[in-house]
Formats: sequence, structure tokens, C-alpha cells
Amino acid sequence: MSKSAPIRVTVWNENRHEQEHEHVVKLYPRGIHGAVKEGLEENLTAAVDVRTATLDEPEHGLTEEVLGSTDVLTWWGHMAHGDADDEVVERVHRHVLSGMGLIVLHSGHLSKTFTKLMGTTCTLRWRSAQDRELVWTVDPTHAIARGVPHPIIIDGQEMYCEFFDIPAPEELVFISSFSGGEVFRSGCTFRRGHGKIFYFSPGDQDFPVYHHKDIRQVISNAVQWALTDRPRRELPELLQHGTDEFYKDAGCKDTTAVYEETTA
Amino acid sequence: MSKSAPIRVTVWNENRHEQEHEHVVKLYPRGIHGAVKEGLEENLTAAVDVRTATLDEPEHGLTEEVLGSTDVLTWWGHMAHGDADDEVVERVHRHVLSGMGLIVLHSGHLSKTFTKLMGTTCTLRWRSAQDRELVWTVDPTHAIARGVPHPIIIDGQEMYCEFFDIPAPEELVFISSFSGGEVFRSGCTFRRGHGKIFYFSPGDQDFPVYHHKDIRQVISNAVQWALTDRPRRELPELLQHGTDEFYKDAGCKDTTAVYEETTA
Amino acid sequence: MSKSAPIRVTVWNENRHEQEHEHVVKLYPRGIHGAVKEGLEENLTAAVDVRTATLDEPEHGLTEEVLGSTDVLTWWGHMAHGDADDEVVERVHRHVLSGMGLIVLHSGHLSKTFTKLMGTTCTLRWRSAQDRELVWTVDPTHAIARGVPHPIIIDGQEMYCEFFDIPAPEELVFISSFSGGEVFRSGCTFRRGHGKIFYFSPGDQDFPVYHHKDIRQVISNAVQWALTDRPRRELPELLQHGTDEFYKDAGCKDTTAVYEETTA
Amino acid sequence: MSKSAPIRVTVWNENRHEQEHEHVVKLYPRGIHGAVKEGLEENLTAAVDVRTATLDEPEHGLTEEVLGSTDVLTWWGHMAHGDADDEVVERVHRHVLSGMGLIVLHSGHLSKTFTKLMGTTCTLRWRSAQDRELVWTVDPTHAIARGVPHPIIIDGQEMYCEFFDIPAPEELVFISSFSGGEVFRSGCTFRRGHGKIFYFSPGDQDFPVYHHKDIRQVISNAVQWALTDRPRRELPELLQHGTDEFYKDAGCKDTTAVYEETTA
Repeated sequence: MSKSAPIRVTVWNENRHEQEHEHVVKLYPRGIHGAVKEGLEENLTAAVDVRTATLDEPEHGLTEEVLGSTDVLTWWGHMAHGDADDEVVERVHRHVLSGMGLIVLHSGHLSKTFTKLMGTTCTLRWRSAQDRELVWTVDPTHAIARGVPHPIIIDGQEMYCEFFDIPAPEELVFISSFSGGEVFRSGCTFRRGHGKIFYFSPGDQDFPVYHHKDIRQVISNAVQWALTDRPRRELPELLQHGTDEFYKDAGCKDTTAVYEETTA
Repeated sequence: MSKSAPIRVTVWNENRHEQEHEHVVKLYPRGIHGAVKEGLEENLTAAVDVRTATLDEPEHGLTEEVLGSTDVLTWWGHMAHGDADDEVVERVHRHVLSGMGLIVLHSGHLSKTFTKLMGTTCTLRWRSAQDRELVWTVDPTHAIARGVPHPIIIDGQEMYCEFFDIPAPEELVFISSFSGGEVFRSGCTFRRGHGKIFYFSPGDQDFPVYHHKDIRQVISNAVQWALTDRPRRELPELLQHGTDEFYKDAGCKDTTAVYEETTA
Repeated sequence: MSKSAPIRVTVWNENRHEQEHEHVVKLYPRGIHGAVKEGLEENLTAAVDVRTATLDEPEHGLTEEVLGSTDVLTWWGHMAHGDADDEVVERVHRHVLSGMGLIVLHSGHLSKTFTKLMGTTCTLRWRSAQDRELVWTVDPTHAIARGVPHPIIIDGQEMYCEFFDIPAPEELVFISSFSGGEVFRSGCTFRRGHGKIFYFSPGDQDFPVYHHKDIRQVISNAVQWALTDRPRRELPELLQHGTDEFYKDAGCKDTTAVYEETTA
Repeated sequence: MSKSAPIRVTVWNENRHEQEHEHVVKLYPRGIHGAVKEGLEENLTAAVDVRTATLDEPEHGLTEEVLGSTDVLTWWGHMAHGDADDEVVERVHRHVLSGMGLIVLHSGHLSKTFTKLMGTTCTLRWRSAQDRELVWTVDPTHAIARGVPHPIIIDGQEMYCEFFDIPAPEELVFISSFSGGEVFRSGCTFRRGHGKIFYFSPGDQDFPVYHHKDIRQVISNAVQWALTDRPRRELPELLQHGTDEFYKDAGCKDTTAVYEETTA
């Protein structure tokens, strides 16, 4: 991919609260996906090419074709994680391991996609009570923290608290505190296979967080960070090679079946 | 658990090569599980209480009762990963996240249990050609590296090579080289939920590696390291708490259902 | 060292506030070092052998002989970091890299010893205004977090805030929040050379934090964690070895001078 | 800094072997610094603006003015680490912590600059005997590994072996093996203060490694990676702030002196 080609982003949203709760519609008249898309376009303009997809579309809008032409996927879900089709989840998982970037937002921590990639329960403690959230940067040279104040101030937000059951993040970028005194690892990076993953907790259907200038900046930074430099999408695979041929192009072949049968 | 109680270890083995291949029986007359058990008892004597379990037993020998009374599980499998029952895999996964230690050996990297915990393909490159393996310590203060030479020398061994598709290990304890010039991250720790995990690649059905003094030392060290300090087995869970009650015992309750329905 | 030998701890304290400020003497009549020592003996009893040393003793009480017989050193300093003799600092540094454990407490973050080991400024943000500190565990299987509530509650404490200019900790065990909404990585592990280091921020001359049951538990856990498993104290050194001799005991020799002169 | 401005690189070289050893001059007629500069310009063309500096220049060519206009510094030294002036080393250290990128090459591991930043001895094992080095990528999505074969093959090279006494790298990008069976963590990233650091071991005065296409690619990638995104060079500092003023611009001031004197 040439440096001047725009990053192809698919913003995925469960889009159920928006159909069921009047106050959510007021906060997000074009859906949470609409607000996230708007934030990306505002910050990245021509450097990004954004489309959206939602749960109720066929295959949740995440066909092989869509994923194959997506550089970075953002994921928001909450009340209907269980409705995500296992086959689609499997497909997203494979694309991430093959090199697609993934930004998981807020309650997406309990999505099938994220828990499958993490291998843990991804549970946490929570309270929905209009807490003030402060998002502090603890990795000030990280590309995802570029251009945001220290701390970011969110006047009203759902509270998320430790223990957050995730693997230790490879890079811890943000830590949040809440009015009640709770803390949360709110910005975390992970690499899985050939894919780069960022989890970012601010954002909720009941608060206008995806209209917040700094939150939009972080998500925009993350999309740029998650873009892989690899020339093509490729799942890591089991390969066999002979002695002294390992570094020649011809030396390796996929041998899953052989591997499991081998004996001297 | 009092410090003087022995660590309860269950050594799990697929035990299929031992039934099908004569030369494997010669190397491991009591099975790979027998050799691993012997190594643990040799090094840890009264500090350990070891039993074994194999694939062909009912529920693979890993009932709720067995896992509930296992402090650390070791896992060896190769040719029959696909035969592991999904329900048993789910049970092992839950016990690890709840605090059971897990030592994954060699070809166990492709087991359902390990890939489910890692979230990646766990693939690698390989060759079975009597390579010499040297196991170098890169974390010399780690408890798992205690008492072994630098490097450990294994005269004949299957070759494993990078790229090994795992999450970046939390602690990289050993790196191996092979006669052909390949390298492999051969000793890696991970924490998932309340469980501690160690992956250790040396060991193969076609070579007598589990009779090797230093390899036995490493596995014995790992069993001691993987024992959790927590007072009881407990899966991390979704909890809600009110403002200012978060640090009182009464303040939290499991609220998965409520969480998914919440709205302001 | 046999498992049953007590851990030899030296508790070091600057001990200047105790001489100059009446209210500090009231909080710590036997000095901060006295309170830390008391906490260790309370928790570890016969498993520990504790002595103390202070800035105003000859060589700050940290002679080659004292350090040579110290398994783990704890360090508290604040108003007189600049008075620490460079030669003593160099000696402590060498012993840590050679395998002595080190627990750096609170304002010790700006000590010559800690900044030399970290390589950074170790600066932070602060306020002394009777904040409540909550210490949350984010690594619940870590030995240092054993047996303390989640969170630990400290009613009055100096506030420390990010950005804390340290290398990313190898293990992040605790994150604190303060009444004002600030957050701090308050419990961090590092390995340097053959030594294990724990930084723990709670504790101040103006608050009775070293009398707090849970804080004493953490420091006691840390002392046990920081004990190295290596058989002898040994500084990593530059070694040369010939081809195929690298893994024989005779193969290596210290060759710093030769290394710098080499040419083909 | 606008995206289109070239990265300002200063390539620093001890440049002593080039003056004393005929065969080094043959390998590097324009000095090691000349070869590194050439490699950067070849790969990055207009995206980079490279100058060089050497030990024998006044202030080693690293005045405040030069460092202040350097985005990324590369460092090669070997036989004369001890001749580096402490004041210049201090200055480089301060610029790295303030945001200047640093690429440390090969024997630069023992330079005052690198050991001061790492806090360890940075010693290793070595042999100069025409080993073949293979450089394997273990972090395939890392920007520094972009566009190089797996493995990179270096026909003749000095051997470096573990244990390499550095802090555990934040990201381990490359692991090398050598003909003799040794392994080495040959590509490691670290963040210190506001600066990004990459250590890369391939390259020696006795072998033409800095003319190697892939090695030049890695160094070019590293220079791009090490560029900070921060708007200005700024050393992390000790700051005090009042309650509820912490997130206002006016709330913080440098208070090193006050901090050390504080008492309730």
C-alpha cells in the first residue's frame, strides 16, 4: 500500500440501543457509528476512507469482501454480544491475525471478537452514575497519545474499574480515574498474529463521549497506528523446511497434516 | 494452602504415539506422562503430589473433580489435538483463568487449550532431523531458570523456528538455537485471569528429551512458579458497585445480565 | 542459600526529617526505618533477619561488608538525596546488578540509586494535602499483591501523579488514585542485571503510612519476591569464548581490555 | 514538525579504527559514519537530512546546537568509549530524555551513553571469528522489521551472545543466531523519558555489514520509528499542583527545591 492511499476503515456498531432507547437517539442521531465516522473524517480528512456496518445487516455487514478491503476495523457493541454470528466472529478473528487493525471501544470488551483474541474473560467492575472520568497519559511518546491534553476530562461517563481481566497490555498508554476513586487501564495495545489491536474504554451509549474532541483525536490516532506495514494480508501458518534451505524462498511449505503425523 | 502442603500436579498426555509407534515406546516405556511425572518426583520429592491423565480416559481424565484438586496441570499433545473434547477444553480454560497453573510442553502449542488461551494461531516452522538444540537463559533471575547450565545442551531434537505466532510473552526466559541456525522463543510466561502459564518447547516423542536432567529441572521449577498464591479458585467476573461502596465487601455483585441491558 | 535461612534485610533510611521535624518524630518515634523494620518482623518473623542503616553513619552504614551480607535492601530518602556519597551509590548499584534485591520506597524515586538504575529522571507530579489514596491491584496473581484488599485504603497521604518518568515497568502490580482524581503507577517491578527491584510509592514522613497493616504486608511480600534464587552474587561481565567451547566451563574469560582493542 | 519536513539525523562515529587499522579503511573508506549515512540516504532520500559527527571533533561534534537540531542520533563506538567526555554524554542523555531519538549500533552497547540510559552493565559474550549471523524477525508487524527477509543473512560477522545484560526490552524485534550456536537479542526497543531508543547489534569494523542492503533497511526503518511525535523537546520534570487545578495550564510549576524541603 502506497503511503498516499487513504486508510480504509470500517466502523462497526451493534446499533441496538439507538433503535430501542429514545435518549440514545438524541445523543447519537446518526448512531454511535455515525459519530465515530464523523470524528475520523474530521481529524484525518483525505487520509481516511470510512464506511460503516451494523449488526442487523446480512452477515453483520462484515462479509469476506468487506473485511478484505478494510485496513482497520473499529468495534462497538454492548447489549447484543450474544447475537454476533460465530462464523462472522471467526472471520474477523482470522482477518485480525492476518494483518487487519482492530480498535475495540468501551463495552466491546465483552464482545466475542475481543474475548477470543485475548483468551480471558475481559470482565471488569462498573457503575453507571454520571462519574467524571480523567484519562491520563502514561506513555507520552506513543503515537496514540499525540495531541491530547493530560488528562483528558470527560464530564459524565460510565465508570469502569479494575480488576480488568485482560492479558498485561504490551503498551499501556492511558490510565483513567473516576469520581468515585476507581482506576482503569483505559488505553491498551496488543499485537496478535500480524494484527495490531487497541482497546480504548471511554465512550458509552448514555453519554455523548464520541462527540468529545479529544476522544475523537485518540481514535483517529489509533486508526493510523493500527495500520500494518506488511505488504499483504497473510495468516501465520505451520511451515516445514529442510536443513540449510530455511532461508530460501522455496524452502517452506504448509504442512499441518504432515506435522501431526510425524514420527522418526 | 499452607506452604508445607505438596503441590498437586496433574500430568496430562495425549498418549497416542506411545500406542502406535514402537520406537516411541522404547524411548518412553511408561509414556511421556510417565517420564514427566518421574522428573517432577525426582526433583521435588515430597513437595509435589503427581498423578497422570490421558486422552483416552473418560473426559480425558480431566473431570471437574480432578481439575478442582489440581494446582498445576502439564499438557503434552501432538497428533490428536482435534480429538480433545470441546467441553473438557472449556473446563480446563475456566480452571486456568480461575487460578490453576498450566505448563504447556512442546507440540502442545497447537492444542485447543493453548490456542484458546493465547488467541492466536500458535503456528511455527519445524523440521524433524536430529538437530542439536541449545537452550539459552535470557532472564537469569527468573525462578524457572534456577539451577540449569547456560546453555542447556540437547543432542537430538526436533527443530522449532520463528515466527512463533504467540502474543509477546510477559517474560521471555529461554531462547533456543538449532544446528541449522534457527532460533525459537522456547521458554515463555503468560498470566491469564488468575492463572499462570509457562510454555516450554523442548521435548518430542522421537527424542528422549524428558529424560534429560536439565529439562526435568526446568519443568520442576515451572511447576513451583505456576502455583498461585491466591486463597481460592475464582473466575474473574463482571461486578457492579455503587459510589463510595466499592471497597466494602458488600458493595459488589455479579451483574452480567443487568450490564447488558443498562440504559440511563 | 538454603530455603530455611532467614532473608537478610537492611532497611536504609535517610533519617533527617526525624531529626528536624517534631511532628515526624511523633509519627515515627523510632524513625521511618524503625517502622519499616517492625512491619517486616511482624509479618515475616523468623523468615527474616532485619538490620537498619542511615545516612549519617560512616559510609551511610552501607559498607562492602554490610551489602555483601544483605539479601534485600529497602531505601527511603527525601530531603537529602544529594548528600548520598557517589562511591556508596556506586557500590549499591553494583550489588543490585550482582543480585541484591532492592525495594525503593516513596520519595526514594529521586534517589541517586534509583535514577542510576532506571536511567531516567524519575520525576512526577505531587501535592501534599491530605489526599485519600486508593491502591488497586492490577496483577492479582503477583506474589507482591498477596493478602491485601482491593483496594488498599490510605486515609491521608501525599499525592503522586503521572507522568512518572520511569521505564515501562516489567510488571505493573498496583495503580493508585487520589482524592483529587490523579492516578499513579504505585507498584512496579524491574529486573536489572541479576537483581530484582520493586518500587512502591505509598509512604511519607508526614503520614503514618508505614504503620498501615496492608502497606506493611506489601513491603513484606516484596522482600520475599526480591530475593534472588542465584547461588552467588555476581556482576554480569564481558566474556570471550572460542567456537565450540562456549558451553564448557573453561571456555569463557573476562576480556574487557581485549574486546576494546580487537581488530582482525 | 510538519510531516513533510525531512528527519534530521546525526550519524555519530568514534572513527578511531578507521585511523589506525588499514583493513578497516579498506572496508570503510569514508568511515563507518560515511557508510551509515549513505545507507540512510539511499533508502530515505528526501525524507532525511543526514550529517555526521566524530569523537575527535570539538565536543565530539555534539554541541547543544547540533543536538538541538537533531531528531535522531545514531551511535557507533568501540575502542574509545572511555574517551567520551562526561559532559557531552550528559548532554546526549538529556536530549534523549527530552525527546531525541537514539539508535545504538553494535559495540555501542558499552558506550557511556547507552549504559547510562539502561542502568545496567550492558555486557555480553563475544568472539571475532567470521561467524555467519542470521537475524530473525520475532515481531513481524513492527515498523522496524518492514521490508527485510526472514532471516537476514550476514555471511561474516563478530559473534555476540547472551546473557546480554540489558533491561528486558519493551519490544523484542530481532533475535540472531551465529554459526557456533549462540543466540542474541539483536534488535530491541526502549522508551526513556520522551525519547525512543533502538539497539541493533549487527555491524562491526572488521566486516562490511554497513554495506549490507537489509541492515541499511533496518537502520532506515529505525530512524523513522525513533522520531518523536511530540511538538517540542522537553525534559520530564518535577511539578506541583493544587487540588482541582491539576488539569489547568496554570496549575503546575517546577518545584524541585520545595519538594525536598516539604513538611506538613
